[in-house]
Amino acid sequence: MSLPSHVRLIEVGPRDGLQNEAQPISVEDKVQLVDALTAAGLGYIEVGSFVSPKWVPQMAGSAEVFARIQRKPGVVYGALAPNLRGFEDALAAGVKEVAVFAAASQAFSQRNINCSISESLERFVPIMDAAKQHGISVRGYVSCVLGCPYEGEVAPEQVAMVARELHDMGCYEVSLGDTIGTGTAGATRRMFEVVGAQVPREKLAGHFHDTYGQALANVYASLLEGIAVFDSSIAGLGGCPYAKGASGNVATEDVLYLLNGLGIHTGIDMDRLIDAGRQICNVLGRPTGSRVAKARNPS
Amino acid sequence: MSLPSHVRLIEVGPRDGLQNEAQPISVEDKVQLVDALTAAGLGYIEVGSFVSPKWVPQMAGSAEVFARIQRKPGVVYGALAPNLRGFEDALAAGVKEVAVFAAASQAFSQRNINCSISESLERFVPIMDAAKQHGISVRGYVSCVLGCPYEGEVAPEQVAMVARELHDMGCYEVSLGDTIGTGTAGATRRMFEVVGAQVPREKLAGHFHDTYGQALANVYASLLEGIAVFDSSIAGLGGCPYAKGASGNVATEDVLYLLNGLGIHTGIDMDRLIDAGRQICNVLGRPTGSRVAKARNPS
Repeated sequence: MSLPSHVRLIEVGPRDGLQNEAQPISVEDKVQLVDALTAAGLGYIEVGSFVSPKWVPQMAGSAEVFARIQRKPGVVYGALAPNLRGFEDALAAGVKEVAVFAAASQAFSQRNINCSISESLERFVPIMDAAKQHGISVRGYVSCVLGCPYEGEVAPEQVAMVARELHDMGCYEVSLGDTIGTGTAGATRRMFEVVGAQVPREKLAGHFHDTYGQALANVYASLLEGIAVFDSSIAGLGGCPYAKGASGNVATEDVLYLLNGLGIHTGIDMDRLIDAGRQICNVLGRPTGSRVAKARNPS
Repeated sequence: MSLPSHVRLIEVGPRDGLQNEAQPISVEDKVQLVDALTAAGLGYIEVGSFVSPKWVPQMAGSAEVFARIQRKPGVVYGALAPNLRGFEDALAAGVKEVAVFAAASQAFSQRNINCSISESLERFVPIMDAAKQHGISVRGYVSCVLGCPYEGEVAPEQVAMVARELHDMGCYEVSLGDTIGTGTAGATRRMFEVVGAQVPREKLAGHFHDTYGQALANVYASLLEGIAVFDSSIAGLGGCPYAKGASGNVATEDVLYLLNGLGIHTGIDMDRLIDAGRQICNVLGRPTGSRVAKARNPS
């Protein structure tokens, strides 16, 4: 068993997390959250999304958030850019790295972004071109890699196909998301084996949801497969839109606890991370989704 | 990677779980819980504890519970017997299998059962003798195997010493408990490596608490070490007495979900298990601690 010595955590709370919280929060509160995450030592923070506020009202004001955060040198402040219009808005807001979003399931792609998988990939081509032109790095997401709310099982070969397309069109990293959290450790390992044969493992990230409590077991299984980048969300922000009241994104604090216990370096300060989580939970008026934070600050 | 093909789950909810719930419940409700767990296919249910009600009022009425449950052939209905008096009471109640309880940490032993580790082991000798005489099997627990609320770190060698003593004095199985839930996957594997050198692995069980969200990752790590018996608690009954409001025992539903995903046979029916959990949570008037149950029955 050889585990990675270093892991990068990609903090998705301000975007993927808040986007799925019922309550919209102010630009000021978002800025404070991002700054607190910076202070905790995160190296990558997904700050917002450049998408029509008609579709995702929680992400309105992303440009203003970008204008007001305190940028720390060496930290990446990323944004989701679902189309060229979004990319241009991101660029205008001074964003240096964007993310694009595809699905491994045809039905999910249709219902979530209203086009087929291949149409979504085609839509990314002009973004990739424009990004190259402006020296912007692009990260790719693939959702539903271990199950789809509409189709059920998703073949690892299908995930590999989409991940490879994103990699080949220029994404420097592809994050594989268990959107509905139904994946377990064995399926996670098989998925990385199959995808890893098409895309180098150092270009892959794991994105796990804790809906069925499996996220940390899946992170550990991924580490055993040599995966060294994970997406997570402060305080477990972002419920599961497919099972109301259930958990969504795995909490950054809980992933960090696992990594610390394994002696894996991340550069993140647990106490400051927990502070950042407490702060945003106070704003949202909801309990933390992190078990570590709960154990450290019992109610 | 070779995982066990079969796993036995030891349901500790009615004893270890309810003992740590603030609210005492009636004999009738306990009987219904045990019967529902039997119907779900559990092969071992820890029904109660024969201990002075002065110390553990939640466990009063264990004899009556044993008298009223519907016993299914092949299912073991166990009870905790902390001393010879408790053993005799258990015997009188028709209990066929008992459990004894030691700690791997000296400080925890003193504070929890008011004697040193070696004194506690000596106290088990007459129980083991009486058990042998009456053909009663004895299961051993070791608590604090991955950390102690008073001492902090606990050496795996210390766990191995206590586990071996229990095994050598006749316990057919020794359950190793991460009482405060601070253990992570690497420490879990090291612990089983060290203990496994003193006690055959097929005689060892894992007992994990989800206080820091690590329980399922630890179960998976244990499976990779060849461990095939796990204690768990329906609906995650039993909070963490050392961090009020935090989780304690890992939920049986969540462990079963992991095992089902890995294709490991248990003989347990998920739907009936979730029904059993829903029933007892209604009695307690508290939400389930199982993420699987929450995802299946969103609030």
